[in-house]
Amino acid sequence: MTAYVCPRCRVHAPADALTWCCPQCRGPWDLEFTSAPVSLESLASRVNSLWRYEEALPLATEIPHVTLGEGRTPLVPLTDAISAKLEFLMPTLSFKDRGAVMLAELARRLAQGGGGLRRVLADSSGNAGTAVAAYCARAGLDCVIYVPDGTSPKKLEQIRAHGARLTVVPGDREATARAAREAADEPGTFYASHVYNPHFLHGTKTYVYELWEELGGRLPDTLVVPVGNGTLLLGAALAVEELYGHGLVDTRPALVAVQAETVSPLAAAFHAGAEELTEPAPVRPTLAEGIAIPNPPRARQILGAVRGTGGTFLTVTEDQIHAAQLDLARRGLFVESTGVACWAAVRAAAPRPGLTVVPLCGAGAKTGLSPSSTYRA
Amino acid sequence: MTAYVCPRCRVHAPADALTWCCPQCRGPWDLEFTSAPVSLESLASRVNSLWRYEEALPLATEIPHVTLGEGRTPLVPLTDAISAKLEFLMPTLSFKDRGAVMLAELARRLAQGGGGLRRVLADSSGNAGTAVAAYCARAGLDCVIYVPDGTSPKKLEQIRAHGARLTVVPGDREATARAAREAADEPGTFYASHVYNPHFLHGTKTYVYELWEELGGRLPDTLVVPVGNGTLLLGAALAVEELYGHGLVDTRPALVAVQAETVSPLAAAFHAGAEELTEPAPVRPTLAEGIAIPNPPRARQILGAVRGTGGTFLTVTEDQIHAAQLDLARRGLFVESTGVACWAAVRAAAPRPGLTVVPLCGAGAKTGLSPSSTYRA
Repeated sequence: MTAYVCPRCRVHAPADALTWCCPQCRGPWDLEFTSAPVSLESLASRVNSLWRYEEALPLATEIPHVTLGEGRTPLVPLTDAISAKLEFLMPTLSFKDRGAVMLAELARRLAQGGGGLRRVLADSSGNAGTAVAAYCARAGLDCVIYVPDGTSPKKLEQIRAHGARLTVVPGDREATARAAREAADEPGTFYASHVYNPHFLHGTKTYVYELWEELGGRLPDTLVVPVGNGTLLLGAALAVEELYGHGLVDTRPALVAVQAETVSPLAAAFHAGAEELTEPAPVRPTLAEGIAIPNPPRARQILGAVRGTGGTFLTVTEDQIHAAQLDLARRGLFVESTGVACWAAVRAAAPRPGLTVVPLCGAGAKTGLSPSSTYRA
Repeated sequence: MTAYVCPRCRVHAPADALTWCCPQCRGPWDLEFTSAPVSLESLASRVNSLWRYEEALPLATEIPHVTLGEGRTPLVPLTDAISAKLEFLMPTLSFKDRGAVMLAELARRLAQGGGGLRRVLADSSGNAGTAVAAYCARAGLDCVIYVPDGTSPKKLEQIRAHGARLTVVPGDREATARAAREAADEPGTFYASHVYNPHFLHGTKTYVYELWEELGGRLPDTLVVPVGNGTLLLGAALAVEELYGHGLVDTRPALVAVQAETVSPLAAAFHAGAEELTEPAPVRPTLAEGIAIPNPPRARQILGAVRGTGGTFLTVTEDQIHAAQLDLARRGLFVESTGVACWAAVRAAAPRPGLTVVPLCGAGAKTGLSPSSTYRA
């Protein structure tokens, strides 16, 4: 198995350990992993499953893998220059399945390998928790999800239906994260964190591999991605580097990151020319709650990835989010409010040359339409 | 364009007419259409869209077609002998998209062709109405959906978000259908009926083409399908005949139809050896409301199709439906209560030889978990 490495301290740990963060700086791990090149020809005959990109994935040995048939989501033109990738057409109706399948596969191996793994733990107020619960169910793993007090009964119902135990934590989202990190240190616990565990990013990178495959071996000119903790963005950056490194693409697309104006610490740092977050953003309600992260642990990596591709940060207002959700519905696509942020951003921004792709990350049925007036000033 | 033909009276009508039923018996149309063979090789390079099966589809000429990237849903093993096809991973989260895309494409052509089409009309309390509304939005067509009084606000919200107008009809589902059929006779109206318009069945038949493709050019031994109006079953039967007729499969799978015991007029007729419905079933509440059709217009065809393949009818109790929904969630799949009926049936039935495939037709997020006690005796 490959090793964890701290991108800041260069501390290493074996990836079969349950150490979920760098013991020195308490920051998230990266993975020491080198992908092999994939080929369009061999992909053509492979069925729906993230593992069809086995050359590019850690944990790809051993068969069968945990899978719910995730991936190969459709690419649908919205305009002549902008296409949407329907990331909500995933087993739990959000793109988080790309990472959750990796974490479940890792946990399954750790449980079988005698490393003492007894339970999987995740914290989430939304799609990530549902995805981890579903994939743990598929893998037959004991799972506990920490959620903030006030999480909608509907979300709790689905997590519970997947057989996961719920721990409801009083206070805000950050209080839940703190409680989860404490519990993650308990013996026998695998912390299935979409933020700290880098296997998640190697799952989300298949988003870009799929675009490359669907476009017949090339990439769009611009990849617009929503950014809270940056799991899709960092996965996309990994994939672009791999494809470029293997000579499978000639140029690297620009990575354009989108945040809700209401909670946009990364956009502020980017435009201030900073390499790190200068200060956490205040916690404020937004329709794009899925990307409302005041202090993302991977801030430095995110800012570096966007700069490295000549990309930028865009922010969207609550009204733009609401309007974009309605606009997509009028085009036949019913998407949850966080998931429309990228379309809101590119509608409002100056056109970019070539092909731009936006992901629509979660199904509208999860949340319904956003209220038009709730979040107005 | 191909022609409509009444399977009972042999009356014909051109398919560019707005005549939605046989003028003689008021029954549903079939389509006079001959498919060409598809090939695995040419499919390999085609992207997500129902139109990748262009050789097998009516309306396949002219490009671009209406599409939301539907189809190519994953096939996921549940046991060694039974796999599930995740039909809820469709743009509007149900298999109805397979038919709705065909009706929207037909309506688009009729509107452009100067045939006087001014609006699309459909009646549905659920997934079909949402699908038709979404695809009309994609095609830029004016759309009105008739729904029964008491349809959940959530469903109405999505239909409205797609820009369709709603007509709420007092009374039960049948009253809504009557009102819609009356309105369908008004000039300029295209009745996008999943029951009466046979293009819908040529859309649902891609379900079987996809299985054939995913299994590398063969079909499962048994196809289990939920049956209310029989749109998936009749589409499946069409596809099996086409694949067999072109020599692309050597044998025909058994078609096993599933109804909720509570509303099972077809199962009763089948086991009584009847060729038609002897009498409509009483309207009673069931968790599988999507297939609770007391008097399906295509009853004769459905019974004939099941008999012709050596299949049978199975019925499931409310408790079995509820248990199947929980069981699937425990395996990582959150499915609406109608959509679990086939899994409920095969779990309870004697094992069949070879590979059995069940479709999971709608996403759990649409309805949530079914209440365990509401429908108990």
